[in-house]
Formats: sequence, C-alpha cells, structure tokens
Amino acid sequence: MKTKKFDVAILMGSDSDLSIMKDAAKFLEEMGISYEMRVLSVHRCPDEAFSYAKELKEQRVKVIIAGAGGAAHLPGVFAALVPCPVIGVPILSKTLGGADSLYSIAQMPSGIPVATVAINGAKNAAILAALIIGTYDDGIYKKVCDFKKSLKDAVQKKDEKLQKIGYEEYIATTN
Amino acid sequence: MKTKKFDVAILMGSDSDLSIMKDAAKFLEEMGISYEMRVLSVHRCPDEAFSYAKELKEQRVKVIIAGAGGAAHLPGVFAALVPCPVIGVPILSKTLGGADSLYSIAQMPSGIPVATVAINGAKNAAILAALIIGTYDDGIYKKVCDFKKSLKDAVQKKDEKLQKIGYEEYIATTN
Amino acid sequence: MKTKKFDVAILMGSDSDLSIMKDAAKFLEEMGISYEMRVLSVHRCPDEAFSYAKELKEQRVKVIIAGAGGAAHLPGVFAALVPCPVIGVPILSKTLGGADSLYSIAQMPSGIPVATVAINGAKNAAILAALIIGTYDDGIYKKVCDFKKSLKDAVQKKDEKLQKIGYEEYIATTN
Amino acid sequence: MKTKKFDVAILMGSDSDLSIMKDAAKFLEEMGISYEMRVLSVHRCPDEAFSYAKELKEQRVKVIIAGAGGAAHLPGVFAALVPCPVIGVPILSKTLGGADSLYSIAQMPSGIPVATVAINGAKNAAILAALIIGTYDDGIYKKVCDFKKSLKDAVQKKDEKLQKIGYEEYIATTN
Amino acid sequence: MKTKKFDVAILMGSDSDLSIMKDAAKFLEEMGISYEMRVLSVHRCPDEAFSYAKELKEQRVKVIIAGAGGAAHLPGVFAALVPCPVIGVPILSKTLGGADSLYSIAQMPSGIPVATVAINGAKNAAILAALIIGTYDDGIYKKVCDFKKSLKDAVQKKDEKLQKIGYEEYIATTN
Amino acid sequence: MKTKKFDVAILMGSDSDLSIMKDAAKFLEEMGISYEMRVLSVHRCPDEAFSYAKELKEQRVKVIIAGAGGAAHLPGVFAALVPCPVIGVPILSKTLGGADSLYSIAQMPSGIPVATVAINGAKNAAILAALIIGTYDDGIYKKVCDFKKSLKDAVQKKDEKLQKIGYEEYIATTN
Amino acid sequence: MKTKKFDVAILMGSDSDLSIMKDAAKFLEEMGISYEMRVLSVHRCPDEAFSYAKELKEQRVKVIIAGAGGAAHLPGVFAALVPCPVIGVPILSKTLGGADSLYSIAQMPSGIPVATVAINGAKNAAILAALIIGTYDDGIYKKVCDFKKSLKDAVQKKDEKLQKIGYEEYIATTN
Amino acid sequence: MKTKKFDVAILMGSDSDLSIMKDAAKFLEEMGISYEMRVLSVHRCPDEAFSYAKELKEQRVKVIIAGAGGAAHLPGVFAALVPCPVIGVPILSKTLGGADSLYSIAQMPSGIPVATVAINGAKNAAILAALIIGTYDDGIYKKVCDFKKSLKDAVQKKDEKLQKIGYEEYIATTN
Repeated sequence: MKTKKFDVAILMGSDSDLSIMKDAAKFLEEMGISYEMRVLSVHRCPDEAFSYAKELKEQRVKVIIAGAGGAAHLPGVFAALVPCPVIGVPILSKTLGGADSLYSIAQMPSGIPVATVAINGAKNAAILAALIIGTYDDGIYKKVCDFKKSLKDAVQKKDEKLQKIGYEEYIATTN
Repeated sequence: MKTKKFDVAILMGSDSDLSIMKDAAKFLEEMGISYEMRVLSVHRCPDEAFSYAKELKEQRVKVIIAGAGGAAHLPGVFAALVPCPVIGVPILSKTLGGADSLYSIAQMPSGIPVATVAINGAKNAAILAALIIGTYDDGIYKKVCDFKKSLKDAVQKKDEKLQKIGYEEYIATTN
Repeated sequence: MKTKKFDVAILMGSDSDLSIMKDAAKFLEEMGISYEMRVLSVHRCPDEAFSYAKELKEQRVKVIIAGAGGAAHLPGVFAALVPCPVIGVPILSKTLGGADSLYSIAQMPSGIPVATVAINGAKNAAILAALIIGTYDDGIYKKVCDFKKSLKDAVQKKDEKLQKIGYEEYIATTN
Repeated sequence: MKTKKFDVAILMGSDSDLSIMKDAAKFLEEMGISYEMRVLSVHRCPDEAFSYAKELKEQRVKVIIAGAGGAAHLPGVFAALVPCPVIGVPILSKTLGGADSLYSIAQMPSGIPVATVAINGAKNAAILAALIIGTYDDGIYKKVCDFKKSLKDAVQKKDEKLQKIGYEEYIATTN
Repeated sequence: MKTKKFDVAILMGSDSDLSIMKDAAKFLEEMGISYEMRVLSVHRCPDEAFSYAKELKEQRVKVIIAGAGGAAHLPGVFAALVPCPVIGVPILSKTLGGADSLYSIAQMPSGIPVATVAINGAKNAAILAALIIGTYDDGIYKKVCDFKKSLKDAVQKKDEKLQKIGYEEYIATTN
Repeated sequence: MKTKKFDVAILMGSDSDLSIMKDAAKFLEEMGISYEMRVLSVHRCPDEAFSYAKELKEQRVKVIIAGAGGAAHLPGVFAALVPCPVIGVPILSKTLGGADSLYSIAQMPSGIPVATVAINGAKNAAILAALIIGTYDDGIYKKVCDFKKSLKDAVQKKDEKLQKIGYEEYIATTN
Repeated sequence: MKTKKFDVAILMGSDSDLSIMKDAAKFLEEMGISYEMRVLSVHRCPDEAFSYAKELKEQRVKVIIAGAGGAAHLPGVFAALVPCPVIGVPILSKTLGGADSLYSIAQMPSGIPVATVAINGAKNAAILAALIIGTYDDGIYKKVCDFKKSLKDAVQKKDEKLQKIGYEEYIATTN
Repeated sequence: MKTKKFDVAILMGSDSDLSIMKDAAKFLEEMGISYEMRVLSVHRCPDEAFSYAKELKEQRVKVIIAGAGGAAHLPGVFAALVPCPVIGVPILSKTLGGADSLYSIAQMPSGIPVATVAINGAKNAAILAALIIGTYDDGIYKKVCDFKKSLKDAVQKKDEKLQKIGYEEYIATTN
C-alpha cells in the first residue's frame, strides 16, 4: 500500500496514540492516497525528527498529519520545518479533558499555522488531507465528494429507520 | 485586486470581525493570491449563505477562510456545504477567554473537519491557505518559503539587536 | 403516536444521541404533546436539514428541540431558519467535560437566541417545550402544574423515607 | 408603557445589571410587548421575591426573563416557583470569564429547566420571549419575522459596503 | 441519635447525594453533635424549603450544611433565609468536572456568603461545623482538637510503615 | 478599635491584597467585632506565620479570615495549625480568571476544611465571621439580622426608584 | 537502598499518592541517587512537616520532590522552608481534571518558585532531580545522557516495528 | 556582565516577551550569575535554535530558562536537546487567561521534564536557577539564603507599617 514516494506523512509521538491515529491511515487507504506512518518524537528523538522533516521537505510531501497529547509539540515543530500544510490531531490525555492537547496545538504563534482538528479527530485529519489534495487532483476530489454523499446517505438511512420503528425499538436493536 | 474568479473566499459573520480578518486579506495580497471577502452570517442570512456556498462549490474555490466568535458556526456550515479545505478562525469574544469560539470551531464531528487556527489567528489562516495552494502551485510554494525565511531573518535581527544593546536599551527604544 | 401535523420537532445530529434525546420524546408523550423525532445533521446532510427547516416553518411548528455534541451547530442553524423557540440540548462529549457542547449552543450571537438547557438535559428541554405550549394551551398548562406537583411529592416521599429509616438503611435499600 | 397586566417580567438581582438588562426592555418595547422590570434578589430579599413569584403565577405571566451574575440563582428559583418559561441571562462577572454565571444558570437539575441564553445576552432573551409569545400571537409572530428580515438586511448592507469600498476604507470609516 | 432540637441541619437536593452527604452525618455523630438530615429541594419543593428555613431560623439552628450539584442553589437560598453560617458542599456532577457545582456555590454575591468546602467534601463540611460550634462549646472544641491529633497520628503511622517496609511492599499490602 | 485580645484575625499574604481585604475590616468594625489585621506570608516568612498561628491558637481566636491569590496556601496552612473556623478569600490574580486562587483554597483535603467565599469576597468573609460569632453572641446575632434587613431595604429602594423613573433615567442618573 | 545522608527527599501528602510517587523512587534507584521517601502532610501534621523541613535544610538536601493533589500546598510550603530546588508533582484528583492540583502548585507567588512537572508526572520529577544533580556530578550527568539515549532507542524500535508489520498487526500484537 | 562562558541561557520566542523575561536577567545579575539572553524561536528559526541547543550542550550550560506564550514549545524542545534543567516560563497571552501557555509547557510527556513556574513568573525562574546552582556553589547558596531573608524582612516591614498606621492610611499612602 505504501510506496517510497508518498503524499501524506502520518506522525505520532508515541505508539500509544496508534489506536487513534490508525483512523487516519484507514481513510487515506480508502481514498487511495499514499502515505507513510511513523512513530517519531520531537522530545525523545529530536535529531531523527529533524532529519525526517528535512527529508519530507526535500521530497515535497503534500500534507503532514501529526497526532500528539499533553504538551503536544510534534505538529508545531514539523510546521516550522516543512513548508506544507500540517494537520494537528490533539490526543485526549487522562487529565484536563484534552484541553492541554488542544491548546498546545491550536494556539500557534503568528507565522506558523497548524491546521487543528477535533480532539482525537484522526479521521477528520485524513479527510482534511484529502480535501487539500483534492484542490489539484480531480480524482481525489471526486472521491471526497462521494464520501460526503455517503455521510448523507448514512444519516438518512438512520433517520428512515427511526421513523419506521420508533425510538424504543431503535435503541433496543442498536445496543 | 479581486477578480470574479478567485482562489480563496474570506468570510466573516459580522463586520466587527473585520479588524481581525483583514490580516488574512493582507497576507493573500502579499502572496498574490486572488480572494473575495464577504460579510455573511449563517445565523442572520442563512439562505444567502447557502446560495453563496453553492456558488463557491460550483466555481471550485480552492480554500475558504471563515472567522467567527462565540457559538461560531460559520466555518462548520461552509465545511458541510463546500468540498474544499475550510480554515476556521476563532474570534476572541469578551467572555470565556475565547474558549467558546475555539471549541465551537475545532470540535467538529467525524466527517466534516475544519482546519482550526489560533484564536484571532487570521494571518495564520492565510498562511495555511497559501501552504495549501503551494501543494500544486510552485510559484506560491516559493513565495511561502521566502516568507518563512523572512520570519527567520526578523527573529535573528531582533536577537542581534538584543545582543548588541542589551535588554534595558532594547526595551527603552522599543516601547 | 406521531401525526403529520405536530407541535414539537425533536432533532438530533447523530443516532448516538438517541439514548439521551429519547427522554424528551417520553416526556412529550406523557404530556400528550404531538412531536416528530428526526436524525438530521446540518453537517452531514445540510440540504435535507435546510429543506426540513423550511417545512417546519411552513407548518408553523411550535417548538424545536435540538440535541448535539462537540461543535454543536444543529440548534443554532435551526434557530436561524425557523421563527419559533429552539431549545438546545448540549450532549456530553468524551472530551472537555461537555464545555464544548454547552458553549457552542449557548453563546449564540445577538439576534438568534437558542434556549439552552443543561448538558444532557433532554427531559428538561421537553418540560420547557411544555411550558411554552402552556402559555396558550390551558390543558398543557394544567398538566405541567401537575407534573411540578409530582416532583414535589417525589422529593417529600424520599425525605419521609429518610426520616423514618435513617441514612444507613436508606443507602442499603436503594443501591 | 407598562401596564398592571403584562406579558413579560424582567428581573435582575442588582441594579448593576441594568446596563445589560435594559436591552431586553428595549426590544420588548419595539415588539409592543408589555412588561414589568424589577430589581429583586432571591438572596437579599427572598420573601419579596417569593411573594412576587406568587403574583406572577396568579396573573399567569407569559414569560420571565431573569438576569444574574456569579452564583446566579434568580432564574432557577423563579423557574421553581412559576409554571412559565423562564429565560436566564448570565451576567459577565469580573472573574472566571462568566463561566460561573453560565454554569449556575444552565446546569439546572431535571424537572426545572431554565432557557439559558448567551452571557450578557439580554436582547436575545427578549427575542426568545417574543418567539414564545409568537407561538400563539400572530401579530408578534409577524413582527419577529420582520425583525429577522431586518437582521438579514443589515448584514447584506454591510457586505455590499465592504464589496464596494474594500476593507481598508471600511475600517477607516467605521472606527 | 437525632432529637427535635438539634444543632446542625444537613440538607441535600436529591437522595442521589446521600452517598456523599452521609459522611457529614457520620462525623457529627462521632462528635456527639445533634443534627437533622433532610432531602429538600429549592427547585422541586420551594414552598417546603422556605417553610423549613423559617423553622430553622426560629429554633435558631447553629449551622446548616447543604449539598447540591450542577446549578447548585440550595446552600445560597438557605443562606439568604437563615441568619446562621451555611456550609455548601459542591457535589460532583457527571459534567464539567464539578466546576459547575463549585462556582454556583462559592461565587455568592456580596451580602450572602456561603462557606464553601471542596467538591464532594461532606466530611470537611461537618468538621467545619464542629469548629464553628467549638467557638463557644469547650467540649466540642476539645473533641475537634483530638480529631486533629488523630489525623496526625494516622499520617505518622503510615509514614512509619512506609519507612519500615518500603514502597513496594506497602503498595502490595495496601491494594 | 483593635485590642490585644481580639475575636478575628484578618491575614493576607501581601499588602497588594489590602485594597480587597480592607472590606473585611470595615464590616467587622461596623459590627463592633474586635480584630487584628496582619500581612503575613506562609511562603516568605513561614517561621513568623507559624509562631503567629500558635499565638492565635493559645489565645483561642474565634475566627481567622485569610486572603491570598494564585497558589494560595495561607488559609490552608492556618486551618492546619489553628483549631478554629478559617475563612479563605481567593484574590483575583491577573491570570486564569481567579480559578487558581479559588481552587487552591477550596479544594482542601479531607480533615482540614477552609470556608471558602467568592473570589475577592472579603466583605462576605467578614459577614460569615459575624454569623459564626452570632451562633453564641446574641448582640452580634441581632446586628447581623439588622444588616440582612438593610440589604433587603437597599434592594427595595432601588426597585422603587426603577419603577418610578424607568430604566433610561435610572441609568442616566446612576452613571 | 536508603542511607541516613541522602540527596533527594520524596514527599507526599497521603499514602494514596504512593502509586504515582513510587515512579520517582524507581527512577532515582536506577540512577543510583540516594533518597528518602516520606508520607508527610503540611495539613495533617504541620509541626512534623516543619521539623522535617528544618532537618532537610540542615543536612543540605540537594532536591525535594513533593507530590500533592487538590489544594496542593506541600511543595510550596517546603519551597518556603528549604533553600533548595523543590519539584512539585500535581496529583490528579477525581474532580476538575487535575487543574486544581496544577494551579495550586505552579502559580506560586514571586520569591518562592516550585519547579512544576506534568500532572501525575512523578517520573519526570525524578528525571529533573537527576538533571539538577547532573549539573555538578559528572557520573549522574552521564547516566542521564544514557537515559535520554535509551528513550530515543525505544521510540526508534517501535517505529521500526511499525514499518515492518504495519499498524493492524502492531495494534493486534500490542493490546 | 555577560561572558562567553556563562551558567544560564535565557531564551524567549519573541521580543514581545522581553518585558517579562528581563526580570530573570535582573535577578541573575543581582546574584552574580553569568547568563546569555537570546531571542530564538523554535517555530520561526528552528535550525538556528537547534544549533544553539547543540552549543549549549557542548559548553555544558548549567540551566536554561525559556519563556514562551500560546502553544509554547520553546522550553520543551530545548529540554529535549540539552541534558540540563530547563525552566519554562508560561507567558500570558491575550486569550484563555494563560492556560494555553501553562498547559503546553507543564504537561510534558514522560522522559522530558520542564520545570514550570507560574504564568509570567520570570523572576521565579531565575530564583529557581539560583537554587539549582546553589546545590553545588556555596557562594550562590548563601546569596539565595540572604535573598530569602530579604523577602521575610520586606513582609515584616509592611506588616509593622500596617500595625502602626492602620489600613486606611496605608492604602492612602501606598497608592
């Protein structure tokens, strides 16, 4: 699935974030977007992170998705090093309800934006990556439009089910 | 500066947001990116907002930047209607320190991401738009790289000044 | 139970909110107030949401109850589109303790109020709807007064039980 | 303007809230809705507050608007005492960004809802009151629809101005 | 244990708070302080709450302990009605981490203080009641001093155990 | 006004808190309650604070009022050292809206309560002290009852003024 | 392991913090740094805490690590009493997401710093202690450098595993 | 004052932080501790920051003090790169009351601690640096002890003044 030359880099600071970040990989696979997924910490292996950022810059990666929790610096540092859109995924920590992760990713200083999505929103990060690639790639653009239609269909199906069987049976059969 | 066909739409819910959102327009002008700037409220003129969103979709606008404060719904609704990257700028309200604006833009449900930047970060939204356009437009890519270099130069100039004159004189001459 | 012409529309953005929002439906049934309950997302099916809002406006629905979590836009958008009282139910998300849901429903801009109830307060939303209908419908008014009396009776019964058996036995027999 | 028999009671816990709460009175006047405005504290004159609540109940007031800040109990206590919709206006205190006022009004227990609007949202409270009265009074309903149209017109006028003169002149001429 | 004439009234808004509030009762029993414990809601049975407050005032109760969660109004309303120290216990709600309960009890307006203790701090409320009674009752004063000494002894015993067996065995034998 | 033997000690960690804490002194003077007011820091002069606490314990002071901001430890440490009711006044800091002061005073561990009042609520602290002394001193009790009546009268006077001259003139003549 | 003369004192207010604070002890053991671990409460045994602080000052302990939750005063009071670096570990309480513990440790007044680490970050506190000792002790300095290298190696090993087996198998084999 | 070889590096991400961070420089000068102060951004000039970090590591700087606001990554990245104690100063931003700065500095992941001081606590950072250096340098240790004594003296002087002239004159003569 992955190739040496890829469009998206998915990064995370710790393998404990993998259960969240895998949603980004899955969506990119569905869209047929090439990616590389790495465990890479700006705190624990800063030199390696720096080198990898330089590589990403040289191969002109299209989008970086970086997930991190707590004092989450990974997205911001990659946004400093690579001139491409960097999407930050705040990972829910056990403390502060995730506010720490959200603030330390979203509140970047002037000059170095990070495109922040919802706490634990790895899938949304991948959708955003696809929307970005869709700005110039008509094939991906069409796939994203189809995906948005599938979202609509799923809601309408649920709505129809609710109209048909009522909320009591709906709850009983869903759980 | 603006043309009928433009790459970026800059939206705001109220003209009171203009003193913040103008920073986005200025940066796009510096980059030579075409844009249209509109005051447009999903709450006060929902039909017009809907129609405009359809227009943006039809002309395949590249990026939408939407600023809003409080219960900020503008970015999210445009993200629902237009299949392009939507960048949300949480505008600082007088209450809650801006947490209301940030949460109601960043915490989008699965399927409909909004690329959230810092509270009042309109310039960063425009930089992010340029980075997105730079994924396929080499001219813009080069300009963004130059801009990033200028950020570096500005910091270094300040650092040199500080080394040279010391903090007391620095503060005295800056303020 | 439901009829084509109804007094209250109960909306939710996702069927995962149904376990909370069912409390609104139950209370309206107890009061004998007609309603329609729909799964309907302003983010995932915006066109359908818009059309439905127009229908509700045309049939002059009395009250709308809308539950949503995270960046909760459903109540606000319906408040923009339908000139009737819209009651917002912030649904507890897994992050931020529900502050995101509460802020993005309550902090509406001037001109477009949403009557916000407590986080997960779907039953209270229905009580509020009944109080609104009771402003002109004496039958509902009386039922709400009776309901308020039943609240009082329930508390007093518990208080009497506590006085009679003491807290130790009370806790032992309740749990 | 005020009559013995009125539709809306506007209450506030302190005359320091009057600069905010006057917005509610003004809007009701514009709508031609009769009201009585009182300074009345559940903490400082509880007996008087109780008696007044009984009066309001007896004369079957349609809607109560209650503004309060900090540990804001006024809306909740009137919601307990009078079986009509009670709209709570959280007043911004100097501390905690208004979160204290918002939480102590919105987070009412099951059984006793308060229709909470935005922090300092006194005008929105009055609009909500008009929407409630509009559920049975066609004259008010029409006025609210006209008001909503005026909101739309105001936004569009600002948008046209922005399109015509550009943001620099707009900011220069507005401030 | 309880007598018709008692020193402390322990109040709670709902019997779901009993598992927390029982700690207050237990400590008062240990101190030999007479009390009455009631389930009594200012929202669900306001008239009864008012009457009871008048009774407490007439019999000149020494201290009131009132526990409540969410938009917690019980302590504040009793502080308004009874000229004695009222101790408020913020009960942890499922949302907002208990900040709602804490703010709506502690942030009382000028004139009507509530002596707020920690979230779920029912035992501390009772200790505070004993300290208050100890200002004039030497017997209680001595018992509180003994209790404070027992706190010290308990910590020192744990410390000695830790010194003796080390943390690994300590943890193994405690859990 | 002050005597060697006094009923209340008013403490503050810094003389920058004096503009808030003076309200406590003023109210105690009005009630005729003797007090001593000290600047005394558990952080900057811990030994002196300890010695003073021992003195207060020996002379069996009735109530301690302690104001502090930020990581506010003064009330808690005195509560540890002196077996009397300690009332904590969280002082608003420039950061975090005062939440830091409130949390570090209210959230005391089991065994050592601090009677926390509102942020900057020094007057309320003194009222609470008077209520505590009023539990055994009928003169003070009567004065507090009179004070509570004066609160009521003041509100009613304002209410009458508002009824008489209307909100526009009220605002014009007040500001 | 422990000796009479030790470099680090590890303190906690309650043995319930031991399951967190043990991580500090373990890391110091790995580094070969001598320590003493005590359960010691500034609230429950203030005199003992004071005496112990004097002992620590006299023997010129190098670093103090103090963990506490809620209104956490232990680190601040030791920072007042002992002229050595004091590292504070905010312990996660069941309420407020740990913000109470963090604020009451970090927000110390000017003059008395506490080196605050992350909520529940006892291991990081010990690493910081080692870094401090490493400023003058080359043996410890080298060990800390080795530890930092081991962090890097662990991340890279995980990254290699992820590259080799892919995220699906990684998740399957880890959990 | 500054030499090529220095003990402390004071870093800040922007010269707008200088008005806060100068307090750190001033205190180090008072203590006679050599330092170098730099404006250096991990976001705007990451390569330069990296190089400087390597230099600091090579010359074995004793302590780093780094101030930053918003998504504050400067202290954390230097903590990753240099094996010495790094003290982080959260700078108050205009939004979120400084919680963003505090969280993104304090909540570091396991392995890479940052010694966080209070929001805007640059002077405390320098005091902490002096305490760290005082662990091995008896001259600095003595100076810090003297400084702590001066804190005590200042409080006691203020206390004496308050005792002598009373709070009214104190306030009148101070402001």
